[in-house]
Amino acid sequence: VKVVVLAGGLGGSRLALALAETLDPADLTIVGNVGDDVEILGLHVSPDLDTILYTLTGRLDESKGWGRVDETWHALEAAGELGGETWFRLGDRDLGLHLVRTQALRRGESLSSVTARLAHAFGLMPALLPATDERLRTWLDTPAGELPFQEWFVARGQRDEVDAVRFEGADAARPAPGVLEALEAADLIAIAPSNPYVSIGPILAVRGIREAIEGRRVPAVAVSPLIGGRAVRGPADRMLARLAGGTGPQQVTDCYKSLLDALVIDEADADEDADVRLIVTRTLMEDEDDRRRVAEAVLETAGALR
Amino acid sequence: VKVVVLAGGLGGSRLALALAETLDPADLTIVGNVGDDVEILGLHVSPDLDTILYTLTGRLDESKGWGRVDETWHALEAAGELGGETWFRLGDRDLGLHLVRTQALRRGESLSSVTARLAHAFGLMPALLPATDERLRTWLDTPAGELPFQEWFVARGQRDEVDAVRFEGADAARPAPGVLEALEAADLIAIAPSNPYVSIGPILAVRGIREAIEGRRVPAVAVSPLIGGRAVRGPADRMLARLAGGTGPQQVTDCYKSLLDALVIDEADADEDADVRLIVTRTLMEDEDDRRRVAEAVLETAGALR
Repeated sequence: VKVVVLAGGLGGSRLALALAETLDPADLTIVGNVGDDVEILGLHVSPDLDTILYTLTGRLDESKGWGRVDETWHALEAAGELGGETWFRLGDRDLGLHLVRTQALRRGESLSSVTARLAHAFGLMPALLPATDERLRTWLDTPAGELPFQEWFVARGQRDEVDAVRFEGADAARPAPGVLEALEAADLIAIAPSNPYVSIGPILAVRGIREAIEGRRVPAVAVSPLIGGRAVRGPADRMLARLAGGTGPQQVTDCYKSLLDALVIDEADADEDADVRLIVTRTLMEDEDDRRRVAEAVLETAGALR
Repeated sequence: VKVVVLAGGLGGSRLALALAETLDPADLTIVGNVGDDVEILGLHVSPDLDTILYTLTGRLDESKGWGRVDETWHALEAAGELGGETWFRLGDRDLGLHLVRTQALRRGESLSSVTARLAHAFGLMPALLPATDERLRTWLDTPAGELPFQEWFVARGQRDEVDAVRFEGADAARPAPGVLEALEAADLIAIAPSNPYVSIGPILAVRGIREAIEGRRVPAVAVSPLIGGRAVRGPADRMLARLAGGTGPQQVTDCYKSLLDALVIDEADADEDADVRLIVTRTLMEDEDDRRRVAEAVLETAGALR
């Protein structure tokens, strides 16, 4: 069974890992968010693609939920001493990747091509594709003004309420090579338990991807990022409350209008309702058993829907 | 007494440190070689400027003679895993500097300006100026073909004999801001015990610098890089033998025609002759006493010559 999963960072990488462990990894294509890509110290950083790559190849620092395990911070420390920016934490091992990617991009290689090379070098089995090779950036409209994603997310610690989300470059962004082909060949489209607005939203802002999913002939299943109406991590619950009027399955479903056939929700939300089929399981993925349970819920749901 | 010293990497930094320890550091201007600058992993690296900066601020790895003390190599290790170039060894702390400099250069700041900022941040007291802000690169004509400096020096370990040296960009290169002013104000011009061809040569290839030294009204003194006819480190002796026909004080002097009033040589070479005044001392600089001895030889010589 061939699966395409749309994924943001940590929640996205968790479901991607769950599916990679449950399926033949060659049957999995991960389409990653690039709306939070950012230039730091002159380097192109793709935090969501990297979190997925590190998670699925055993390199993620699980305690932090980002960056590499066994990391050191000497380059950033030196850069800081010399007046360089240090608000975005790039570890030494992590920098090695950003250096190679940035050099490739400067030489004219596409993000999807260099991502494939990096993934191959690290032994990633599933295909990892950026949503687009074009520049696409997430901006947040807040009471403090419109902020670029990482300024809002990292520098200001998501303290600003979000009134609207804008995807710079979305109009011109075409799906990266392989994305539409994978969607066309898929038996199931999965949406990871990532923030619907700022992790999945930028992927769906690429018109070709949205249209391909709207025109799907196979089931599309999302895993809710909420447990008991609260985000496991990050500001998804606050954003849903403010922008969708609540933090239940219906509000998550509303984020994915015409793109969803079923929503996997946590037992803690089992008494809630929504206008797609709801599948109840424990959705927190802390270990391999958890991941298998969620992956199976996603895959069985798809089977039931077909 | 105001001194300008022309300096390459390790030998250059040793004499620069000797002078900085002996003079009021504010009276010292170091003009550094940029002919061995190189782009590695997309970063602008200025090895000689950095060796001087690290040496004079206590950050040099003295055991290696390059790079930073207490260095780690995680970024390069990761880059290597991902297919990035690793032949030029950039440590993590060192990378922090290259990141800040490269970002500044990409934004249009001049090399001299960013060098001044880096030097200030690291607490360097003497002025450190690149010979030029323009692109100037050293090429070596060898039996294996013409090689860029670092390919010859690092990648191929100086195994190729050198038939000629060429300085790409020298015709268009103007002295960096402050260089001519420092030479004009100097009471003494010193040439460090660096390789005359590939460390001092690129500095003197900047026509404005060469002309200013040729037209000097103050003494110019070099310290020979040879001890007993052999280079302390690196291929200077082999190059002198092949290109100048010998490894005595006369051959060093020949490299600096019309630019030199005296040459400080080691006791081991005391029975040699040359057509400038020779000052004999122990020239190896391993500790502070050594450095003071050499600095005083340079400074006293200048006093005697005036």
